[in-house]
Amino acid sequence: MLKKSPRIAVLGTGAIGGFYGAKLAQSDASVSFIARSDYNKIAKDGLEITSKWGDFHVMPEVYPAPSAYPHQADYILVTLKVLPEVPLIEMLGPLIKADTAIVLLQNGIDIEDAIAKAYPDTPLYSAISFVCANRISPGHIHHIDYGQVVMGRYPKGSDDMGDILCTLFQKSGIPCKSVPDIRFYRWRKLVWNAAFNPLSVLSGGVTTDTILANSKSRELVAQLMAEIVTLSIADGYALPFDIIASQIHDTEKMVPYKTSMLLDFEHHRPMEIDAIVGNACKIARHYQVSTPYLDAIYALLELLNQSQIQTQ
Amino acid sequence: MLKKSPRIAVLGTGAIGGFYGAKLAQSDASVSFIARSDYNKIAKDGLEITSKWGDFHVMPEVYPAPSAYPHQADYILVTLKVLPEVPLIEMLGPLIKADTAIVLLQNGIDIEDAIAKAYPDTPLYSAISFVCANRISPGHIHHIDYGQVVMGRYPKGSDDMGDILCTLFQKSGIPCKSVPDIRFYRWRKLVWNAAFNPLSVLSGGVTTDTILANSKSRELVAQLMAEIVTLSIADGYALPFDIIASQIHDTEKMVPYKTSMLLDFEHHRPMEIDAIVGNACKIARHYQVSTPYLDAIYALLELLNQSQIQTQ
Repeated sequence: MLKKSPRIAVLGTGAIGGFYGAKLAQSDASVSFIARSDYNKIAKDGLEITSKWGDFHVMPEVYPAPSAYPHQADYILVTLKVLPEVPLIEMLGPLIKADTAIVLLQNGIDIEDAIAKAYPDTPLYSAISFVCANRISPGHIHHIDYGQVVMGRYPKGSDDMGDILCTLFQKSGIPCKSVPDIRFYRWRKLVWNAAFNPLSVLSGGVTTDTILANSKSRELVAQLMAEIVTLSIADGYALPFDIIASQIHDTEKMVPYKTSMLLDFEHHRPMEIDAIVGNACKIARHYQVSTPYLDAIYALLELLNQSQIQTQ
Repeated sequence: MLKKSPRIAVLGTGAIGGFYGAKLAQSDASVSFIARSDYNKIAKDGLEITSKWGDFHVMPEVYPAPSAYPHQADYILVTLKVLPEVPLIEMLGPLIKADTAIVLLQNGIDIEDAIAKAYPDTPLYSAISFVCANRISPGHIHHIDYGQVVMGRYPKGSDDMGDILCTLFQKSGIPCKSVPDIRFYRWRKLVWNAAFNPLSVLSGGVTTDTILANSKSRELVAQLMAEIVTLSIADGYALPFDIIASQIHDTEKMVPYKTSMLLDFEHHRPMEIDAIVGNACKIARHYQVSTPYLDAIYALLELLNQSQIQTQ
């Protein structure tokens, strides 16, 4: 059973972990952070949030590693990037106690399975955020716009423990929705992510407006989106094809936007290639669906990533 | 009828024009160059060729524009890049007299038709080169390796006037073959070009060995090549599918190679996107052949080209 003031361990203090963790710290939850590179700065000065919804500052508990975390967490909120080099299973080990739940607030598709298999007795939740936020410097997050969270039990369903976290998000001012079919929402978010993220990088670095202004790359956006929609249908989460037109239309009305993958690329940080593109290609092979556009994009991103690592 | 010492006007003094023009100047042809940006340097110091086959220097006639060329050329050897911004039809105008033939020694597919339509009474030859050569500086060409030329009458056939030029190439030390079906050879060369050129650029700048060392981009190379082979079949010039394995194999045995498109990209020069990829996509639409890999690559190159122009 949950205590009145649930204990949350936030794993990762980038834009997502910093922003949502700091917001949750304003609810009646006990929030601690587990930071790696930013530990010293946050331990000294806390977290500074410059937000469209109002700036604020929190001075939370922070620990330099999972093994240093002294409590029994009710929720581990995972906000790390989904990268092959991030040993998430290992990192979760010291944090998992009886009654601890894992919440993956991360990008991509098919990112949960390895965790579910490694910790079969631990309740697992999957969550996605719709937010524009950047980590400006260690401990300083800029929340630019949006902020909704959608979450559900993995692989499906919803339950009290999830609903309690959702209510905590809401109490802290985050629009949050608890859904019984989170994978549907992951597919829906992937429609946008799998098209705009890769193109923004492979184009040499352009914003969404430039991608859509060129008729050929606009068409490529639509083709990539159509492949994701087709995959969602094969996977039993039938997105409607008119989501393509509506997402392109909505993106056109947005302020020109630099994708998270492009920000990572520009800062020579690893990109979430597998979570956003590679896993979709694997799902395509599983269902024997042809996805040449995704395959081409995936190969190019892998090659680009490799050449970027070589030149570092 | 041709004189004993044919007169050749070489249009373009980059790597291809400089190298082949200078070689031809060593045969019994009268070779003049029409240079734009490199005119002053070549007029003063001639052409310096650093070549695997032996270094040499020529001091040829050179003119700053087609309108300044005072002779009646037997052959206009066009070695300019195939780019939308190069007004080749206009440039050819002052050079074309009775008995003048045009020879397009250029990359790509479907690059001849506009010229054939603009000058229907002028014999037109189409030629491709297999050469590693760079323009190091104005008037200084480095011939690294290879050098064969394959040429034929456009749209097909071969004739005396073509054979005479072919013999001139041979006399100057260039392996040259006159063929009755030059479009077959253009398709064959395109198999390599349409795969390696785009990938070398879109990867952030890698050589052929890196492209082939990554299993996914190696697979993408094969897919792009397969689309070109399929197009060649639709177009009536059936390349064999095993050309894919043999070209990949041959490329693996080559010294790691930087493609011409990558060199252009790195030097912020326009890339031959249409000649090498875009025209193939147009041919695909004409025959209603599906070429998703080429389409994806084409869109990305266009977007990259556009973003590069914007940042200049």
